[in-house]
Amino acid sequence: MSSERTAIVAAPAPGSRTGKALTLSEPLVLQSGVALSPVTIAYETYGALNADKSNCVLLCHALTGDHYVAGAHPVTGKPGWWADLVGPGKMIDTERFFVVCANVLGGCMGSTGPKEFNPATGKAWGLDFPVITIRDMVKAQARLLDHLGVQQLFSVIGGSMGAMQVLEWAVRYPHRVFSAVPIAGSYRHSAQNIAFHEVGRQAIMADPDWCHGAYLEKGTVPKRGLSVARMAAHITYLSEAALHRKFGRRLQDRAALTYGFDADFQVESYLRHQGSTFVDRFDANSYLYITRAMDYFDLAAENDGVLSQAFRGTPVRFCLASFSSDWLFPTAESRAIVHALNAVAANVSFVEIDSDKGHDAFLLDEPEFHQTVQGFIDGAAAIRGLPKRAV
Amino acid sequence: MSSERTAIVAAPAPGSRTGKALTLSEPLVLQSGVALSPVTIAYETYGALNADKSNCVLLCHALTGDHYVAGAHPVTGKPGWWADLVGPGKMIDTERFFVVCANVLGGCMGSTGPKEFNPATGKAWGLDFPVITIRDMVKAQARLLDHLGVQQLFSVIGGSMGAMQVLEWAVRYPHRVFSAVPIAGSYRHSAQNIAFHEVGRQAIMADPDWCHGAYLEKGTVPKRGLSVARMAAHITYLSEAALHRKFGRRLQDRAALTYGFDADFQVESYLRHQGSTFVDRFDANSYLYITRAMDYFDLAAENDGVLSQAFRGTPVRFCLASFSSDWLFPTAESRAIVHALNAVAANVSFVEIDSDKGHDAFLLDEPEFHQTVQGFIDGAAAIRGLPKRAV
Repeated sequence: MSSERTAIVAAPAPGSRTGKALTLSEPLVLQSGVALSPVTIAYETYGALNADKSNCVLLCHALTGDHYVAGAHPVTGKPGWWADLVGPGKMIDTERFFVVCANVLGGCMGSTGPKEFNPATGKAWGLDFPVITIRDMVKAQARLLDHLGVQQLFSVIGGSMGAMQVLEWAVRYPHRVFSAVPIAGSYRHSAQNIAFHEVGRQAIMADPDWCHGAYLEKGTVPKRGLSVARMAAHITYLSEAALHRKFGRRLQDRAALTYGFDADFQVESYLRHQGSTFVDRFDANSYLYITRAMDYFDLAAENDGVLSQAFRGTPVRFCLASFSSDWLFPTAESRAIVHALNAVAANVSFVEIDSDKGHDAFLLDEPEFHQTVQGFIDGAAAIRGLPKRAV
Repeated sequence: MSSERTAIVAAPAPGSRTGKALTLSEPLVLQSGVALSPVTIAYETYGALNADKSNCVLLCHALTGDHYVAGAHPVTGKPGWWADLVGPGKMIDTERFFVVCANVLGGCMGSTGPKEFNPATGKAWGLDFPVITIRDMVKAQARLLDHLGVQQLFSVIGGSMGAMQVLEWAVRYPHRVFSAVPIAGSYRHSAQNIAFHEVGRQAIMADPDWCHGAYLEKGTVPKRGLSVARMAAHITYLSEAALHRKFGRRLQDRAALTYGFDADFQVESYLRHQGSTFVDRFDANSYLYITRAMDYFDLAAENDGVLSQAFRGTPVRFCLASFSSDWLFPTAESRAIVHALNAVAANVSFVEIDSDKGHDAFLLDEPEFHQTVQGFIDGAAAIRGLPKRAV
């Protein structure tokens, strides 16, 4: 994998990307004030835009996700992150909707980010890449939708960091969003979540192969640090109950404890696997930048701490969902958003899904969750005047 | 600190220890079957043993604790881990009780552990040290009490890993324990807790300065890896509410976000401090061995999964306490022990303390908790025929 990354740096032509990509004609002015250029946004689309361009659904991916939502992922060969929910006749029906998903700014699957080529220096951006925010990611997506000719989204949907983007869309571009579905999200990253992100960043930066961010030049990959970061994060994506159900204290391919530091327990083996496979598909510097963007997210702070001010007068229809065993973005976080929306008489529905699968439930088989979102989409589509779902 | 460690290896004489130490005259046969020798147990005592040797209280320390319970710690200069609760007139009144605390086997504050000198090789044990268990730690403590002439403990008390030792004492030596107080503990380490420990171990082992465990020989210290391990663990010791109350999203000595990877947030700065100070007082290999001992702990497994069997016929009086916001050793873990004790009609009291301080509450100012333990101790002392507390 390190050779593949080096190859991308050596030959950063758009041809190295497997999906669609848009390179903006003008710099993107970031929240930090930096004018970033060039900016390429890698994206995928599914289905077709209708004549009045009213059927576009934007999906926003989570921290380690990307724009390969449905079908097989070109790098991992595994199904896209919402392959079960996006497709013909599925919850997000690609025969009704024009579905768009973009790799976030700062990402590592084709959009401009720290592993991409910086023409100003003739090498990979590395730590020369400016710190980006959720607002910057959304701003880039808005440029992409301009390019695609979509003035108003029928819906913007995402979980986790995707939910942050959804909320940012609704706050920043209320008239470009007909409906919004933030799932398992928050209006600001909590102290505990910042703390977990900081552990991951420190793990990466502690790896000598990180080379102060210049590992692509040095021909190394901070595999150990990134793997540890992923392991720590992965625990937070699951619930204690899910870990107990999946692994408990069962031993890994052995009949008894070995009295050593091998992975005696299945849960150890599983975590190590999560860490080691992650480094094959994700860039360490991207991990730093995207976690930072999440940490910086705070819709209340920019309104003197009053979240409802962010939504005053919003025309957007909201549907929020949380999962009972999610301790990374617990129900209380979604409920705080619902209260803020209620305070400004916004159109909002909310459901807490009873699940023991933890935060990752938004990616997993949760029929009640899917029925809830399906119902909301169908209702909103009817109001928007879109054709009914084929039954 | 690395020079101090080297000095201990180069000159492992008992004189390098600041407290008391016992070197066993015979090898200690470990649960793994290994006969470990020599075995030194560093310990502290407070108060005096009474004439009939019935007033001994054994305190069992947690993962990163040690035997310096009260007074100033000789290495850190800070108060011992239960300095507020152990002393004349305090909850564990050193005018009534002979209080003993030993550094656990595998530890790094004077007891035999991986950083100590291995006469068989002429160098530090490192990874040649055998994997030890909670049972081994308790067995070593029993030898120490033999040496001190204490046949039966009035009480054995400890929180977290200390609670594991308390339970092990009650199960393995029921007639040597009059009363037992396991606080914020568990009868077996959960999958989630094993997972967090594995992250810490992988962080340490990922550090090139760990040198496959031989860092003392190489003159290095795996500071970065141990620091990351501590940071990840430290989050689990606090509650989300405590982190929010202590830090929230407040910035560290700055008026605005810096759009960089410095510690913008107080919680980041705090965690980094926790990590960097920890490496000055704790040995990385000890961290590996002690976390492993906790992972291996399972009182039910050795009774075909039926925990109550471990306690059948126990004469020990139990008092259990848990904390409502502790998600590392949640109340359900203590409750499972209480149910098992009830199933064999053992003498047990239990209280869940309402606290937002998380797992660390057992070390902090929690008056209701202290009153509960005080009441139990006073009641048990009366039954044991010990003098009443001076009022």
